[in-house]
Amino acid sequence: MKRLLDPDSLRALSRGCAVLGAGGGGDTYIALLQALQATEDHGPAPLVDLDELPDDSLIMPCGGIGAPTVSIEKIENGNEGERLREQLEFLTGRRVAALMASEIGGGNGVLPVAWAAAMGLPVADADGMGRAFPEVPQVTMQLAGISPSPAVITDERGNLIVFSTISGQWMERLERSAADEFGGAASSTEFTLTAGQARGATVRNSVSLAIRIGEAITAAAADPVAALIAEIRAFRLISGKVSDVERQTRGGWVRGSVVVEGLGTDAGRLIRLELQNENLVALERGKVLASVPDLITVLDSETADAIATERIRYGQRVTVIAFPCDPVWRTEKGIAATGPRAFGYDFDYLPVEELAGAAT
Amino acid sequence: MKRLLDPDSLRALSRGCAVLGAGGGGDTYIALLQALQATEDHGPAPLVDLDELPDDSLIMPCGGIGAPTVSIEKIENGNEGERLREQLEFLTGRRVAALMASEIGGGNGVLPVAWAAAMGLPVADADGMGRAFPEVPQVTMQLAGISPSPAVITDERGNLIVFSTISGQWMERLERSAADEFGGAASSTEFTLTAGQARGATVRNSVSLAIRIGEAITAAAADPVAALIAEIRAFRLISGKVSDVERQTRGGWVRGSVVVEGLGTDAGRLIRLELQNENLVALERGKVLASVPDLITVLDSETADAIATERIRYGQRVTVIAFPCDPVWRTEKGIAATGPRAFGYDFDYLPVEELAGAAT
Repeated sequence: MKRLLDPDSLRALSRGCAVLGAGGGGDTYIALLQALQATEDHGPAPLVDLDELPDDSLIMPCGGIGAPTVSIEKIENGNEGERLREQLEFLTGRRVAALMASEIGGGNGVLPVAWAAAMGLPVADADGMGRAFPEVPQVTMQLAGISPSPAVITDERGNLIVFSTISGQWMERLERSAADEFGGAASSTEFTLTAGQARGATVRNSVSLAIRIGEAITAAAADPVAALIAEIRAFRLISGKVSDVERQTRGGWVRGSVVVEGLGTDAGRLIRLELQNENLVALERGKVLASVPDLITVLDSETADAIATERIRYGQRVTVIAFPCDPVWRTEKGIAATGPRAFGYDFDYLPVEELAGAAT
Repeated sequence: MKRLLDPDSLRALSRGCAVLGAGGGGDTYIALLQALQATEDHGPAPLVDLDELPDDSLIMPCGGIGAPTVSIEKIENGNEGERLREQLEFLTGRRVAALMASEIGGGNGVLPVAWAAAMGLPVADADGMGRAFPEVPQVTMQLAGISPSPAVITDERGNLIVFSTISGQWMERLERSAADEFGGAASSTEFTLTAGQARGATVRNSVSLAIRIGEAITAAAADPVAALIAEIRAFRLISGKVSDVERQTRGGWVRGSVVVEGLGTDAGRLIRLELQNENLVALERGKVLASVPDLITVLDSETADAIATERIRYGQRVTVIAFPCDPVWRTEKGIAATGPRAFGYDFDYLPVEELAGAAT
């Protein structure tokens, strides 16, 4: 065991997951409350390294699916994780040994801890993205050839659906439309795998990384934004205020754009972020400053707390940062799955170090 | 065994199912071709009475779900029934003893015979409606308190989904949206039950009835429409030509209306049919001539072949008939589930004998 996920580490985890969410992955505040409550009721969940688990032990990647704007109002019943696990154990005929966040970013990095604590199971120190991405198959397990099936989703009412699909893209379509039918959000598990498979098919140590990020922000004496930027070697794209927000919730997604107007040394500049649950692209006068799969995160300029796409609003004083994704997303397959063209943009991916590094 | 469903009985079954479809239940021609091919390849499926099956033997109610306009273009792969059965046997841990049509109306009354022949299984002489209805829970099994779960749907590509829902209405919502995502149609099984349960929870002898109807039409020497009307004690609402068709395929449904203009002794009359996959209501100058749950069927005036809602078109010479539904739909629960108000109409159900009987 690496550590117990006690209330202090949960608070740090929550702040770190928000930063790694790149605007998405769901609300961290609600997930943190769920995790704190589960920890108070059942004791803290242990965080374990994948190397500590036997090769053939079963890992359940899990989290929420849908539009984050919905998830902050349509909250869980509490037993969703348990229902997913029961179904997965029935389908595989095996016991789940540990939970893992499908994506470490946003509330989805924290939610599995709440479920694990309630079930008395450990959480694996890994995830399927190293950030948050909008689509179900945008996970390292898909790149590694792990099947998304059987996937299970459930809602707060007790409805449950099992999917077995011919591809990750069909899983995305079918799960998304079911989550939409549930009201826009659901709880889910996909890409079940063994610990042995997970060692080569996940982003490792990402729970620890998120906790470290959260602790760096908390520990910062004077300038939390500067402390965070130093901790994760991020690029500051702009500091200013949110001057425009356009946001639509439709088809199980939040889509839209955010305009940030520079203040202080950035006065006169305008940066536009385009989003699909997560921040996809940062543009200045048509020039790309950063894009998926690299992370673009909007921070509160005072506290360095990351502001999710569903919480952003006119007038907020923010600093937009960008930082490198996990190297797996910079491979040919990774860029094909999560680069700008995967989201319909007509330009090639360039690493943030080249784009924003040159600009700042 | 009551009989073998040989090619002649399949042709009669297909004609009868079209009449019992009340415009819906899917295309009988494609389902007939499937059943004839399966019968040629594997031999005829036996038709069995529910009393012939042991109490605890498992019945798989099955058929297609979606918009009939789609089903005539997006046809099955051929192994859908087998895939449904395999999944159902995995989920229940038991062997399926017989297939049963969820609805006897339209192609859905014939399709289970194709699947049964290919699997070497018998077909039960019963169904869940005694006709076709648009919605998944509009079956006698729902009235009898049988659970719709687990339901399984699959598409021609090999995608498969299992639903476990808190109600029949949720089953309808979730299956419909999945069928829509598949492209508008899918193959499905719901309301799995035992033969013992089925004896009190289905419309019995409906396969035999459909064959008898088909045979009556085929045997008619001069006037097949008159022969059919005599066989099922139907009311003739109008004879004329189709003068207007409005039809939309959306959300896994066909919705719209059809206007029939009287000819001959009916000259000067206009009848409007409103439809949602099936014909729901027949209106003349705002007066209801017949409504769900009673059956309203449009016949070719020459051949007495029933014309499904997705095949109806301007200029066709048609006779519209209406006839009584199974008595189970005229109970309080039956009317609540399938009467005019269940489809959003603001009037009470009256039996066709009172409405059309008075008019003709």
